Amino acid sequence: MSDMSEQMSKGGMSRRDFLKMSAVAGVGLAVGGAGMYAIERALGSDSTAQAESNPAGEQVPMYGDHQAGIITPQQTYMYLASFRITATSKDGLIRLLKDWTRFADLSTSGGTMRTGDNPNLPPSDTGESLDLPPSRLTATFGFGPSLFGVGGTDRFGIGSKLPMHLKDIPRMPKDNLDPSQSGGDIIVQVCADDQQVAFHAVRNFIRLSTGSASLNWMNEGFISGQPGKTARNLFGFKDGTANESHQTPSGFDQVVWAADDEPAWMNGGSYLAFRKIRMLLEVWDRSSLTDQQNTFGRYKESGAAYGKKEEFDTVDASQLPATAHVRLAKDSKQQIHRRAFSYTDGVDHRTGNVNAGLLFLSYQRDPDTQFVPMLKLMQSSDKLNEYTMHVASGMYACPGGIREGEYIGQKLFES
Amino acid sequence: MSDMSEQMSKGGMSRRDFLKMSAVAGVGLAVGGAGMYAIERALGSDSTAQAESNPAGEQVPMYGDHQAGIITPQQTYMYLASFRITATSKDGLIRLLKDWTRFADLSTSGGTMRTGDNPNLPPSDTGESLDLPPSRLTATFGFGPSLFGVGGTDRFGIGSKLPMHLKDIPRMPKDNLDPSQSGGDIIVQVCADDQQVAFHAVRNFIRLSTGSASLNWMNEGFISGQPGKTARNLFGFKDGTANESHQTPSGFDQVVWAADDEPAWMNGGSYLAFRKIRMLLEVWDRSSLTDQQNTFGRYKESGAAYGKKEEFDTVDASQLPATAHVRLAKDSKQQIHRRAFSYTDGVDHRTGNVNAGLLFLSYQRDPDTQFVPMLKLMQSSDKLNEYTMHVASGMYACPGGIREGEYIGQKLFES
Repeated sequence: MSDMSEQMSKGGMSRRDFLKMSAVAGVGLAVGGAGMYAIERALGSDSTAQAESNPAGEQVPMYGDHQAGIITPQQTYMYLASFRITATSKDGLIRLLKDWTRFADLSTSGGTMRTGDNPNLPPSDTGESLDLPPSRLTATFGFGPSLFGVGGTDRFGIGSKLPMHLKDIPRMPKDNLDPSQSGGDIIVQVCADDQQVAFHAVRNFIRLSTGSASLNWMNEGFISGQPGKTARNLFGFKDGTANESHQTPSGFDQVVWAADDEPAWMNGGSYLAFRKIRMLLEVWDRSSLTDQQNTFGRYKESGAAYGKKEEFDTVDASQLPATAHVRLAKDSKQQIHRRAFSYTDGVDHRTGNVNAGLLFLSYQRDPDTQFVPMLKLMQSSDKLNEYTMHVASGMYACPGGIREGEYIGQKLFES
Repeated sequence: MSDMSEQMSKGGMSRRDFLKMSAVAGVGLAVGGAGMYAIERALGSDSTAQAESNPAGEQVPMYGDHQAGIITPQQTYMYLASFRITATSKDGLIRLLKDWTRFADLSTSGGTMRTGDNPNLPPSDTGESLDLPPSRLTATFGFGPSLFGVGGTDRFGIGSKLPMHLKDIPRMPKDNLDPSQSGGDIIVQVCADDQQVAFHAVRNFIRLSTGSASLNWMNEGFISGQPGKTARNLFGFKDGTANESHQTPSGFDQVVWAADDEPAWMNGGSYLAFRKIRMLLEVWDRSSLTDQQNTFGRYKESGAAYGKKEEFDTVDASQLPATAHVRLAKDSKQQIHRRAFSYTDGVDHRTGNVNAGLLFLSYQRDPDTQFVPMLKLMQSSDKLNEYTMHVASGMYACPGGIREGEYIGQKLFES
């Protein structure tokens, strides 16, 4: 254990003190310019600080106009946990959100809760990340339709604040969904560059929910860790190249952040669409390179679209097969902000094949005009359908960011 | 795609050329002194090069007296895959081992197979690691008792070469084993610091086994990525501190490498014991700090044994509770070389709890005197049993290392 964490646990050091010491001592690791900047911004309580500006640093500030973990450059690991709220009152739900906010603040800033003063009580923190740096940890929260009483009763008196586009993704012709792996009242997307740091956070969110919520399902995903390069999916293709085109403040406004006519609590928020897409690796691996490339409309090695030389050359849809994945995405004329992770999950014992695929996540301003039409077009025509199966689904409204002292979603419950 | 991999795929660059270019160009990443050294050793065909000496570098040489991945400092990720051999002849099994060796050589040295000259055929490589460095990838192979005909017929004519201590781990009183998740004819332990690199390798081992073997089960695990520090398990305790004590050549000889009176193919080999240990996180998290510390006999934060100040201070067993995990390990007077990884696997739908725990792996010279007595003592007395459940088990004989041009286990089949 480092002197710092020893001091923290003995002296009950605050997050702010911890950050200051970390900035000076480097928490035993190299904190580069961007990292120092992020720490300074966090110390300065710059509540408009954006999470996306710290790709190289170790800490992603959680306060600002938007939640962290949406336009933050993708970390290497993700846990995605879906909760059913069992608290029966608005106050009970607010207590949970406050506990979660407090823990998110502490863990994303590299502190942990204290192991415990009273040895006769359980430690306040589970401890597996005691020696580990923040590792760009982010926690992003979204509310499902059921939280607002859609398809049920308005348990928390927030039905009138239902955002304009929040509803389950419509059933698609090729869906093969497992309802027990879909939806949920609240989703938490936890990401970090260290899997143990990410697990520590999601585990403690689960722990803090005892008595207020139960865990529906949890997925874990990864991407390859090469900064600045488009990661390859498990079919070996670069996936998400089009994300580059809207990575500007005005691009994010057009693509990601909710519109002004939404309920006020969605100001700075976004919609998260989730699809768990099983990829039939064994079928894919037996198909020819030509078939594989026709399926995407890109060359496998370079990632360039058909008829182009480089990955980021502008796609000319007319040069792509009519059923190519990239052509359909282009034809839909819509943009989304993709934040997908691969998953692997042992052996499917019915077939003996590897159970693996894509945890597809995208954030968008308006799923009705962006995500859903794209999904429909792809389900009807995409050659990729031969090699994939959609097994879980969810849509969530992610509230705007908060300032220090506020709790996640506060404006939904209190204004 | 980098120029280098383009050149490699166009020109059919050899592994050796690829290594040379990597050493010069740095493969787009910083190759430190140790990395260069490793590459030089690989280029020099120093067949006695040991895998363990390159903790900071990107490449772990696969050739030498011992297989890599045994005393190699632990990488961040592991896939553990168990195969049932369906090939019915010794020649068929040898063909599989040759294919695996060829792929292990190429992938651990940072090359991949070529995507393919003939676009009408499936690509020879699945491609998801095309842009990624070797990431300290290792592949370690072990043979289960069933490969030698134990409990069945001697399918491959190698029954007379059964190593002295190769048999299933005896049934323990508290076992709760799932046979479909245990054992296997051949085990492959694939480790890397990048999960996608590790998955790419295990997936291609599976792919290359088509027609010769079927996949029984596959587990994936991780440890936190802080080099030089003892990783914490999911109970928040430092686990594996005792491993430090035998990290010398003579220590490894005493603890890890098979004895001289074993069949010749086990020269430089070792026995791998595997236990999948479910950890009941929710029960643990509700127990007091005192209970938790008594269970291990160590302080949670510092990792020091009871009565000591620092993690690596010599343990005084008399100061530890009689049922403490560390005391029992000490009392057994045996050493093993631990190489364990944590796992998380979503939600257990019977209980709503998180499905997580430890993929316990240890390598040892003689499991009958080292591992099994320790396991027996712990199953009868260890306080940790209240919080854990052993759900899978396996014992494998890992053959000694090979020289370039040989295939894995060659001495077993050909001498």
